[in-house]
Order: sequence, then structure tokens, then C-alpha cells
Amino acid sequence: MYCNKYKNNKTNKDLEFERNQATFSVEELNRILNDNDQNSINIKNEIKNLIESDPIISKPQEIHFLSREDQFKRVLYVCSKLRGIRQKYGEAGVMQYHNNLFEELPYIINDLVFASAFKSLASEEQLNKWYHHFLNYEYLGSYSQTELGHGSNVQAIETTATYIKETQEFEINSPTLTSTKWWVGGLGKLSTHTIVFAQLLLQDPENPNKLKNYGPHPFLVSVRSLENHQPLKGITIGDIGPKLGFNLIDNGFLRLDHIRVPRDQLLNRFFNVTADGKYIKPKHSRLIYAGMVGVRSAIIENSFVSLARSTTIASRYSVIRKQFKLSPKDNEERKVIEYANQMQRIIPHIASTFGFYFTGNRFAKEFDQMISQIKVNQDTTLLSELHANSSALKSYLTYAAAQGVSECRLSCGGHGYSHFSGIPYLQANQLHIVTAEGENNLLPQQTTKYLLSIIKKLSTSEDVDQVKLGKSVEYLRDEMKSTLKNIEEYYSGKDTSILHPDTLLQLFKHRSFNLLRILSENLQDAMMNSKDLASVWGDLNVEINHIGQAHAQLYVLQSFYDQLLKIKNSNQVSEPIKSLMDQLFQCYCLYTINNEMVDFVQDGYLDLKEVDQLRKSLTNVYKQLRPNIIPIVDSFDLCDATLGSALGNYSGNVYDTLFNWASTQAFNSNTNYTNEINNIINKSLYSKL
Amino acid sequence: MYCNKYKNNKTNKDLEFERNQATFSVEELNRILNDNDQNSINIKNEIKNLIESDPIISKPQEIHFLSREDQFKRVLYVCSKLRGIRQKYGEAGVMQYHNNLFEELPYIINDLVFASAFKSLASEEQLNKWYHHFLNYEYLGSYSQTELGHGSNVQAIETTATYIKETQEFEINSPTLTSTKWWVGGLGKLSTHTIVFAQLLLQDPENPNKLKNYGPHPFLVSVRSLENHQPLKGITIGDIGPKLGFNLIDNGFLRLDHIRVPRDQLLNRFFNVTADGKYIKPKHSRLIYAGMVGVRSAIIENSFVSLARSTTIASRYSVIRKQFKLSPKDNEERKVIEYANQMQRIIPHIASTFGFYFTGNRFAKEFDQMISQIKVNQDTTLLSELHANSSALKSYLTYAAAQGVSECRLSCGGHGYSHFSGIPYLQANQLHIVTAEGENNLLPQQTTKYLLSIIKKLSTSEDVDQVKLGKSVEYLRDEMKSTLKNIEEYYSGKDTSILHPDTLLQLFKHRSFNLLRILSENLQDAMMNSKDLASVWGDLNVEINHIGQAHAQLYVLQSFYDQLLKIKNSNQVSEPIKSLMDQLFQCYCLYTINNEMVDFVQDGYLDLKEVDQLRKSLTNVYKQLRPNIIPIVDSFDLCDATLGSALGNYSGNVYDTLFNWASTQAFNSNTNYTNEINNIINKSLYSKL
Ligand SMILES: Cc1cc2nc3c(=O)[nH]c(=O)nc-3n(C[C@H](O)[C@H](O)[C@H](O)COP(=O)(O)OP(=O)(O)OC[C@H]3O[C@@H](n4cnc5c(N)ncnc54)[C@H](O)[C@@H]3O)c2cc1C
Ligand SMILES: Cc1cc2nc3c(=O)[nH]c(=O)nc-3n(C[C@H](O)[C@H](O)[C@H](O)COP(=O)(O)OP(=O)(O)OC[C@H]3O[C@@H](n4cnc5c(N)ncnc54)[C@H](O)[C@@H]3O)c2cc1C
Repeated sequence: MYCNKYKNNKTNKDLEFERNQATFSVEELNRILNDNDQNSINIKNEIKNLIESDPIISKPQEIHFLSREDQFKRVLYVCSKLRGIRQKYGEAGVMQYHNNLFEELPYIINDLVFASAFKSLASEEQLNKWYHHFLNYEYLGSYSQTELGHGSNVQAIETTATYIKETQEFEINSPTLTSTKWWVGGLGKLSTHTIVFAQLLLQDPENPNKLKNYGPHPFLVSVRSLENHQPLKGITIGDIGPKLGFNLIDNGFLRLDHIRVPRDQLLNRFFNVTADGKYIKPKHSRLIYAGMVGVRSAIIENSFVSLARSTTIASRYSVIRKQFKLSPKDNEERKVIEYANQMQRIIPHIASTFGFYFTGNRFAKEFDQMISQIKVNQDTTLLSELHANSSALKSYLTYAAAQGVSECRLSCGGHGYSHFSGIPYLQANQLHIVTAEGENNLLPQQTTKYLLSIIKKLSTSEDVDQVKLGKSVEYLRDEMKSTLKNIEEYYSGKDTSILHPDTLLQLFKHRSFNLLRILSENLQDAMMNSKDLASVWGDLNVEINHIGQAHAQLYVLQSFYDQLLKIKNSNQVSEPIKSLMDQLFQCYCLYTINNEMVDFVQDGYLDLKEVDQLRKSLTNVYKQLRPNIIPIVDSFDLCDATLGSALGNYSGNVYDTLFNWASTQAFNSNTNYTNEINNIINKSLYSKL
Repeated sequence: MYCNKYKNNKTNKDLEFERNQATFSVEELNRILNDNDQNSINIKNEIKNLIESDPIISKPQEIHFLSREDQFKRVLYVCSKLRGIRQKYGEAGVMQYHNNLFEELPYIINDLVFASAFKSLASEEQLNKWYHHFLNYEYLGSYSQTELGHGSNVQAIETTATYIKETQEFEINSPTLTSTKWWVGGLGKLSTHTIVFAQLLLQDPENPNKLKNYGPHPFLVSVRSLENHQPLKGITIGDIGPKLGFNLIDNGFLRLDHIRVPRDQLLNRFFNVTADGKYIKPKHSRLIYAGMVGVRSAIIENSFVSLARSTTIASRYSVIRKQFKLSPKDNEERKVIEYANQMQRIIPHIASTFGFYFTGNRFAKEFDQMISQIKVNQDTTLLSELHANSSALKSYLTYAAAQGVSECRLSCGGHGYSHFSGIPYLQANQLHIVTAEGENNLLPQQTTKYLLSIIKKLSTSEDVDQVKLGKSVEYLRDEMKSTLKNIEEYYSGKDTSILHPDTLLQLFKHRSFNLLRILSENLQDAMMNSKDLASVWGDLNVEINHIGQAHAQLYVLQSFYDQLLKIKNSNQVSEPIKSLMDQLFQCYCLYTINNEMVDFVQDGYLDLKEVDQLRKSLTNVYKQLRPNIIPIVDSFDLCDATLGSALGNYSGNVYDTLFNWASTQAFNSNTNYTNEINNIINKSLYSKL
């Protein structure tokens, strides 16, 4: 493990104590989390070493002192390592670099957002012609879909791309202020090229004097000179200004004044425009947004990252921080982690870290499978289910991670509000994906729509057992057939307990199905009064979103459950880790049930005695996990430069670090500046105004 | 109203439409919110005018572009107006200035935190000698209680103040790194004086060779020269570094190296040390922290402020922002406010703004009453109840406001993540009080302790009706005597409905009492196994905190209810406003119940049919309020410079403002800087590394 390099005799004694009381091997758990893949572990370690041995990159706390301008210069230095990393370690190394840095790099847009869109939208020919330039950072790409006036409703964007038959070009234009591309990551300062979404206007086959709109399509557009990086003619471009977080990324705006691009810069893997202006349509309309599902898949895969970081910081600090003696006679105050409310602020999010990690791995596999089917023969069978799951998961995971990070920050008390804790920066960055890549209150609606369509398919089929269903929605059939009236019938029938993983899983299956059932009824009722589905749908959005969340939680649970079984059935895994996994699974389930209790009781599936029992079990499982929390977060193996935290470093060197970072900042030590301030203060304090 | 000055023909047409459809008079509502106090309205308007007519102060969005150093210089300019304001408008003007600025001023520490502590802790003599200097900003004060190692557990601070009989001085000292004062607002750069809390060490009356510790006491200490503002000898002082928010405030650290202060700088209103070193103790031990209750009272009073601002921004933007057509035939897309989930993100927080505003007013009155009783004759009768309520309220109100601000920000979609929305800055500042002035998970514990003591008093008394109780806990007696088994018995008995304000209030009374009853049982059970109350208490913290919250919600409800009755019974108030108030009250209740549903059903007090009814009524009340949301937020009468928002300005000038603020920032237009960046980019992009 990388963290072993910190082991020395300056470790805080309380942290040391916690490490010594581990009931399992941290190395073993770390290997399991890495799928025993030694090659990938080696790359990770080398990247971590690169980060920690660089005199600038290893000190991310410096970022907080810099103006945005100076931050941006610094981050370009950090980006400059990427080319060498890609040459040496390939794509895996690049992703490890992005994942192990404290800060976000603007090049992530080229490496992930642009790459993912380009790979899925460009034909093989286009890929061969262009892609290597972006991989080598000779060009930098971005993804220009959103406009000042429209994000969620992409269909309503105003940018146009009109085909000019004579020259075989598209003329791309921003007709209004609100059509200005906005929010585009990497565009403000860096992009040489960007994928512009524009309404495709072709001569109308039915009326040659008119243009027909074929809807938004993606075009590769050059925006800056490859000679001097200045905006090209007709391009107005810039940074959109300071943001809550993500300030190292130059989210930009773009106006295109009748820009011409060659016909072959329509990204034409799935659709095309012929030389004489005929449209060739895609097999599946959603394919146009395939690039976005790729980014969403990455978000899902990485949703555990901010939780792993914040729980590491909060857990370490919580065994070092002490407040209040149990009794006046005690020598020492209690570690704050001993308080139940402190456990509740941290431990569930440790459990979620595992659940989300397993979920991400599962989803990434499903995504790869779908992509290869599409690439091979435009087979889109898996697309609807995967799109539905990606929508619900992106929304739920990013909301839950935001909440977890926030609670971890609060658990650090006053010092959690300082940038030196490392959490505010993490939190500010994390928050952006609650909104970006599909707003969180919109996405789950698509999931629920999909689930309702499955319910409909099942209820109108002659034989439910014959309906073909994907794994993630199989439960809808089971529930439809089920005659169970309450969960007790389930577990007493199986002669197990309510805390058995099977029972917990069943609770979530029923809950999700039952919410759908209630929604269907409400939809029908509402439709009786008003015939307008769109407005009824708008009225029931809150319930509709909630179902998306319930379905996502079930997906997480199922992913966790599958791993739990695998681990428990393996004779490679030690007993202590098996029981640890049991506890983490239970913790995730019980915490989630506790937050959504009404869903589970509202049809009497769970009764109030059981509610009480589950609540007490939750407290109990916190206590079981408590002695192991430091070893667990150690197994995430995050390096100090990744955490950028005075509170969460491996050695527990909290107070010295806080004092050093604070007292040496320029705001205190720069005497020129200090004198100037003193003059202002003197003037305002001691003289009449 | 101040906002009338914006009325012109450049207002966005959708905002205009919304204003025209108001069912009530915005002016009337504004007057009601100002208690018809024309004098106070005039002061407010003059202060607003001062803010908006200053070329620097009126452009708060500039703050986001400045380095911390430059922000600090700017804010000193903004502070420099305070002396003149105090001379012209007195204390009320000063507070209006603080309340109507977009940004926080470091002088708020002198004006509120220091002032409140000093006023309550200093004797009349001390007040006469010192206070006017702080009021005139000749000196600047702060409050140094927290240390690097201890915040919550003040008893364990390490700074010492040893009395030196010979010179009649106290010697104040920081013995360890962790005893460094930390987090002290205003201290880093500005304070000339600070109130230092230190363990008071006097000669032990029983053993003259030893020192006896009398616990933490407050001392007024000079820290910077009044000549040149340099730290005095023995003082190490500085700023603690960048934070999540509140960066215009110089939270500081302080180390004292055997500093001597005269005996009369122990703030001795309630306790004293005689010349020969004898201790004179206070009537009530809590009086030492009386200053903190003052600040907490101000927090409670101002808890509606961030909600008023964020709901104003979110509401205005939500009627301008449009996404998706109901039907392809429609000319226009829908205003996003029409979606139920958007209403849910905003409207409950509008209702809370009212609830919290009424609560703050009530609490402030109760606080003033208590303070005057204490000042007159150290009569502390009201202290315990008030302290208990302040603890629960501070915690609940700041949590709820943080959530409301966050949801308003999210409701603005992508643009909500931009600093130009004005909300991220507001949110970052607001978040600090979740932790500061008593950590939110600690405070409610004190409330619950108090409530348990009342329950005990009631259950051990011969005649419950004879026990003297404060208004806010009267419900405990009623509930103890009540024989109602469920809420239906209550409202059907009264021949009203479940939505009647009386019924809703009763639901909250029962719920809070019932949670206490369950806790008592759990405490007793747990004590049977372990005899250690402190550790049982620590284990049940989650439930204990939850009761604090339930009690606080009831307090808010009661305050809202009292105002509702007053308004409904007044023949000065128009009918439309009466019914608006009904809706807002209902909205606050139903939203709160919906979030905490399990509490209400777990003993069958509410049944599942009623749950369903309440949920549907919530959606219904959103729809009732929907047409009035712009007029409602207009009645808060916030000026554009207060909001600092491209999305929420009065005229609805959203997209132009976003574009202007973004395109003219130095990050885009400063050519020197741009060239430098381009060089870096050119080097890294187009050459081999
Ligand atoms: C940090 C960041 C980076 C970004 N990067 C990029 C990028 O690289 N490229 C790019 O093209 N874009 C980018 N975006 C834009 C982003 O994709 C959009 O902001 C996002 O999709 C939300 O769209 P919106 O801003 O139009 O929100 P809106 O849809 O305007 O949301 C406003 C409110 O309306 C509600 N609402 C809207 N429609 C409905 C409905 N039908 N039902 C219910 N509620 C509704 C929403 O829930 C929300 O509360 C980025 C955004 C951010 C914040
Ligand atoms: C912006 C800001 C401004 C401030 N301004 C000032 C100022 O001007 N002057 C000043 O003196 N101080 C100031 N403070 C300090 C502030 O008062 C403390 O930070 C605050 O009281 C929290 O204390 P702590 O940091 O010790 O938290 P801790 O108590 O260390 O909290 C850590 C965690 O432990 C938990 N915990 C601790 N004890 C218990 C318990 N008994 N039961 C259950 N859980 C427990 C907490 O809930 C929290 O989750 C400021 C702080 C901030 C953030």
C-alpha cells in the first residue's frame, strides 16, 4: 500500500491505537477493493508518487491563497504532466492522475467529456483523422451543448447549422444572446476545438424553398488558432466567471458568427448528411446523446471518490479530536467519534462509499457491454434500461455524495469550515455534478417513465413469465406475482431474520414497486380530470423523482449484495473481512430505510415494531463498525496530497499543521501588504472620517 | 417601498405579468412585516439608498474577482461608512447597514459579537469607561473564547489568568500550542482589544501554597497598539487562513505570553476578584456565557434573512426561466416554477421565511425581557427556559436556513452554480453558523435536558396544575393530562378539520411530547444496564437532538400561529392577506410534517389515511401560493445591491447581466494576463514536453 510510506514514529498516538485495534488486515481489504489487480495497484502507486514528489503538486493547500489568475497558471503546470503520463501509463495512468489529485484539472474536459462524446459520436474515419491529436494534447476539445437560455431542454437550443450544398459546408450561427453557448468546460481559455450542438437545417424535401429542422446535431468546430491560440475569425469566446467551485476549470461562452465547417465535421457515426443535403437518420434517436451517457457512467463510477476522501478526513480527525470527559475523574476527554450523533454523521457514509464503489464497477461493465453492442451493429437493445438506470443513479449518487461530504465537514466542527480541512474545496467541486450532466430533478423522471413502461408491458402481457426483462427491473415481475402481504411473511417463511441480507433486499424491492403502484393510480386519477399527460406529469414530479431514487437505491443495494455474496463465498477472503462486509451492507440498508421510513410502512409492509427494531439495529451496527473505522478508511489508501487536509493526514498531525499553514500565509507575513492594510486601518480607526 | 424605484418599462415581461396578477397589495404586506413602523422603514430606505448610490458598495459582484487581500482592502472601505451611519441613525442604522449589504463586514464582530458580550459581562463602571470607544470605532473588539484544541467544551480551555496580588494584575498566558486562541472573528487583522476567556487561578483559600481554578472567566485584553496598530509585546496574532465562506472576516489566532492586565479588566458585572484575591461568585453559573446568548438571539432574529434573499432570487428566476413545452403546439415553453418539484424547492422556504421572521421577533422580545430582569436585580428566573429555547432554535433555524438556501440555489439549475447568481456566496456565509456559536449537534442536547427536567417536575408534583411553567413548555402539562388517543378525536371533537391551524398546532405538541416520552423510557432502560448517565446520553444523542428540533419547530409554529391570529383578528388587514397568511402557515406545517412523518404516525396519533390527505394538501397549498410568489418576495423589499444577483434583480434582467458580468471580467479582458496564459498554453500544447 502507498500509505505505508508514511509509517513512522511521529504518528498521533490515538490514531496509532486505533490502527492497532483493527480486527482485519488493511492490506487485504485494500487488495480486495483493487480486485487483486497488481498491475493497476502499481500504476496507482507510481502516480501517487509522482504527485507527492513534485514540490508544487504535492502542496495543494497553496491553491487557497492564490487569485483565480494565479490558480490557473498553477493548474496549467499540473496539466503539463499529462502528456508524459499518457505516454508512460496510457489511459489508466491519465485517469489515476485525475482521480488522485486534490484539485480538478481543466484537461479533464478533454480527457473525459470531450473524449467520451467524440468516441461515441465520431465515425471510424473521423476518429482516425482527429482523435490522436486530442490524446496527445496537440488539440484540446470540449463539449458545447448548453446555451445561456437552455440547458435541460436541449431540443430548444437556438444555435443553427445550415447546410450549404454549393460548398458542402455547414454554416453555424448564434442568432440571439440566449443562443450563446455557456457553461462549456475547458472552453473559456483552453479549447482549440469544441463539439457544437446546433439545430441541423437542411433543404426541406417537400418544399425546396424552405429549410427543415432535423433537431440538434454535433459538429466539430475549430475555435482557436493552432499558431497563436487566438480566437478564430467569427468566434467570440471567453470564461463565464467565478463559480461556487470548479474554478480551475475555464467554463466558457461561445458565439459563432456564421462560421463555416466542412461537411465531414458533422460527427457522423450514427447519422449523416449526404453531399446533396439528404439526411440519413440514426437507428435510435437517443444515440445523439450517447456521449452524455458516457460521462454519466464516469460520474457513477467515481461517485465514491468524494465520500472516500471526506470520510477519511472526518474519521481520522474524530479519533484525534476530544471534547468532554465522561466523568470528572477521567484523565482524558472522549474522542468525539464516541458520540452517537458523530457516528451517524460519518459511519453511514463509509458504508455508502463501499456501496457506491461496487455500483460504479457494475454500471461501468454494463455500459461497456452496451457500447460494444452498439458499435458492432448499432444494436440498441440495452440502451433504454441502461439509460434509465444511469439517470436515476447519477441523480441519487451525486445527491447522496453531496450530503455525505457535507456531514463529514460538519463533523469536523469549527475546523471543518477552514479550507485547511480540505473538505470545503472537495464539497464545492462535488456539488457541481448535482446540476451538471443532467439536472438531478429531471433525470429520475426518465427512469420512472421507463419503469412505468415495463409495468405496462407486464400487465398487458398474456404471460408475465414470458416478458423479457433486464436484471435491474426483474423485481417488477416478482413483485407483480408476489402474494406477500408483509415482510414478516417473507422472513418467517424463510426461517431467517429481518436483518438477513435477503430480507433487506426484499424490503427495497417491494418499496420501489409499491411506490410505482401508487403513482400509477395517482396518474390515472389525475388523468380522469385533466386529459393532458404533460401537465399531470408536471404536477406529480416530486413523487416521480422519488421513485427514481428508490429504484437507484435498490440498484446500489443489489450491487452491494452481489459483492457481499461473492466475498462471503470466497475461500480467499478472511473471516474478519467477511463479517466486516456484512456490517457495512447492513449499515447502508438500515441507514437508508431509516431516512425513508414512511415508504416502508405506508402499506403495512413493515410494522411499527419492526421499525423500532431496525432503528435499534442501526445504532448497534454503528457500534460494531466503530472500532474499525480507521483501518477501513486506511484501506482506501489515499495519499496526503490527495486529501490536502490538516485534519486528515495519515500521521494525524492536526494542530501543528493548522498552525503552520495559517501563520506562514502571505496574508500574515507579506509585510508590504500588511503595512498598506495598517495604513487603511489607522486612517479609519484613529481619525475622524 | 424601496423597490418602487426600480419600476420602469425595462422590466422582464414575465415578471411584470406575475406582478399584475397579485391577489393582494405588496405595499400592505410590506407594512405588516415592518409592524407599520414608519420610522424604521425610513431608516431602512435611507440605508438602502446609501448602499445603492455608492459606486463601489453597490457592485458587490466585484468581490468575486478579487484576491483575498484586495477583498479585505475593499471591505475596509465599506466598513468606513459605519461611524457616520451610527452618528446619523444610531444602533438601528448600523444594524440595517449590516443586514442590507450583500457581504459580511468584519466590523460586525465589534458591533454584535463583542458588543453583546461586553454589554452583558461588563459592570456599569466598565461600560462607562470603555464602551463608547468601541461604539465610535476608536477601538475594535472581539471575543476570544475558542482555542485550537477546544471549542465546544469551553471548560477545558487551557489559557490561564493568574491573579498577582502584589500588583493587582492578572497574568494571562497560553501554555501550549493547543491553547492558542483560534477562530476569533475580527482578531486576525483588526482588533485592538479582545475579550479573552481564561481559567481564573487564585490562591487556594484552603491551601495558600496552591492555586485554585475557578474556571473560565472573561478579561478585556489590549492586543494592538493604538498608535501604529502593531501587536503589543508578548502578543502573537494573525489570520487563520482561507475558509469556506466569511473570508472578509479576519478570523484570527492569538497567543499570549505572560501578558499582564489590571484587575479591573476582569469583566465583573456578575462576579469579581477582590484586591486581595478573593473570589465573589455569580448568582447563576450560566451568567458567564450570557454574552453568547445575546449573539444567539441575534442569529435567531436574523435567521430569515438568507431565506428571504435566496427565495427572492429563486422565485424571480423561476418565472423567467423556461424549459419544455407542454405540447408541441404551444408557442412558449413553461416557466420552470410550474413544475411541482420546482415549487417544492422554493415555496416551503418562502413559508419558512415568514415563520422564522415571527419567531425571531418573539424570541428577541423574550430575550430583552430576561436581560432587563437580570440587569435590574440579577433575577435569573427566565434564564433556563430562554437558554433552552435559544439552543434548540439556533440549531434548527440555521440548519433549515442552510437547506433552504441550498435548494434555492439548486432550483436555479446551472446558473445557480455561478457566483453571479449571488447564492453561492450567501450559502457559504450562512453555513458558518451551523457550526459557530455552539455546534448544532450539541446545542439541542441542552434543550432536551431542560425539557426532561420539566417532565420530571410535573410527574413528581402533587398537583400538576400548580407547577409554574413558561409559555413555551406549557404543552408538556397539557399533554401529560391529555386523554386523546389520536388527532381525529381532537378535530372531530372540535368539529373542525385536520387542516385547521389549531389541529396542526396540536399535532406538533403531541409529537414533541411523545418523543420525550419515548426517550425517557429508553434512558431508563439503558440506565438499568449501565449506571453511567453520561455514556448512555452519548449513545442516545441522535434521538436527543431530534427532540430539540421537534421542540424548536413547535416554537416556530406557535410564533407563526400567534401572528396568524393577530392578523386574522385585525380589521386593519385586508382579506386577501389574511388568506395568504393562512396558506403560508399551512404550507410551513404540512412541509414540516411531511419531512418528519414517522414521528407523527409511530404511535398511531396520525393514521395512514390522514398522512395521504396531508400530503395531497401540501401539493394543493403550493398551487394556491404559486400565483402570488413574486408579489410575496417583492414584499421583502430587498434591493439589487443586497442580492448581488444576475438572476434575481428586480427587473428580471437575467441574460444581459450574466453576459456583461462575464465578458468584462479581467480574466477575459486583461491582455497582459491573457498573453501570459497563452504563452503557457502554447508551450504545453504545441511543443513536446
Ligand atoms: C459546473 C458545470 C459544468 C458544466 N459543463 C458543461 C459542459 O461542459 N458542456 C455543456 O454543454 N454544458 C455544461 N453545463 C451545463 C449543464 O449541463 C446544465 O446547466 C444542466 O444540464 C442544467 O440545465 P439548466 O442550467 O438549463 O437548468 P434548468 O433546466 O434551467 O433548471 C432550472 C430548474 O428548473 C427545473 N426544471 C427544468 N425543467 C423541468 C421539468 N421538465 N420538470 C421539472 N423540473 C424542471 C430544474 O429541476 C431546476 O430546478 C455545465 C454546468 C455546470 C454547473
Ligand atoms: C466561522 C466561524 C467563526 C467563529 N467565530 C468565533 C469567535 O469569534 N470567537 C470564538 O471564541 N470562537 C469562534 N468560533 C469557534 C466556534 O464557536 C467553534 O468552532 C464551535 O463552537 C464548535 O466547536 P469545535 O470547533 O470545538 O467543534 P467540536 O466540538 O470539536 O466538534 C467536532 C464534532 O464533535 C461533535 N461533538 C463534540 N462534543 C460532543 C458531545 N458532547 N456530544 C455529541 N457530539 C459532540 C460535534 O457535534 C462535531 O460533530 C468560530 C467558528 C467558525 C466556524
